[in-house]
Amino acid sequence: MNKIEHIGIAVKDIDQANTLYEQLLGVPPYKQEVVESEAVITSFFKVGENKIELLASTKDDGPIGKFIAKKGEGIHHIAFDVDNIEKELERLEKEGFQLINKTPKKGADNKLVAFIHPKTTNGVLVELCQEAPSQPSPK
Amino acid sequence: MNKIEHIGIAVKDIDQANTLYEQLLGVPPYKQEVVESEAVITSFFKVGENKIELLASTKDDGPIGKFIAKKGEGIHHIAFDVDNIEKELERLEKEGFQLINKTPKKGADNKLVAFIHPKTTNGVLVELCQEAPSQPSPK
Repeated sequence: MNKIEHIGIAVKDIDQANTLYEQLLGVPPYKQEVVESEAVITSFFKVGENKIELLASTKDDGPIGKFIAKKGEGIHHIAFDVDNIEKELERLEKEGFQLINKTPKKGADNKLVAFIHPKTTNGVLVELCQEAPSQPSPK
Repeated sequence: MNKIEHIGIAVKDIDQANTLYEQLLGVPPYKQEVVESEAVITSFFKVGENKIELLASTKDDGPIGKFIAKKGEGIHHIAFDVDNIEKELERLEKEGFQLINKTPKKGADNKLVAFIHPKTTNGVLVELCQEAPSQPSPK
């Protein structure tokens, strides 16, 4: 694991949270992105080499909507940057960690991502992420 | 804010969690430290430039004991590294953030620390921390 890539924070209202985190961190979000498959709208802030990702649900029964209904707004997950996500998933499964995603999927911010179940990590939802290989440019 | 200095994770059993996070992160903790004033025992792991801090309560009615009783184990706070903690606290108070500590106090890992109330940060307990000035060496 190279570093904390980002911390994901579940919020109800992305516009309110964008304003507030801009005041907190002293920088505006550098990107906003909808991830349809996860029913979220995300905003990213840079803090040195790390990022803060705000996540708001685009529908009540999406994963972030359910999280907020159960626990309220707050930190949702911690993501670690890795060089080889498939190798790391294999290693962690052997160590006994329960993988939510056995194979990486496409996440926000041009990443391949996979999650580890919080029940094997003391209640922490852990994400692994690796920069997705760049697409070949069209000729 | 320079970077995410660390993520604090509330755990019940520091030995169990040390073993598990060593497996997860691939490195052993580099330091273990009791902070009497907070009734916690802490362990620190390096992940690149960032750290993971495990926090276990040394008594049931300490802040971490209460947190776990209410919410279970999991991410407790996010700490940002700052150059001048007093100036940053002054700035954030002016912006309308509610400070838990109006002046910095001595935390673990040789840091001056201060917390911002989660009710003004979308449910996230935010810590600011600055490396404590080194003590003059005895003659």
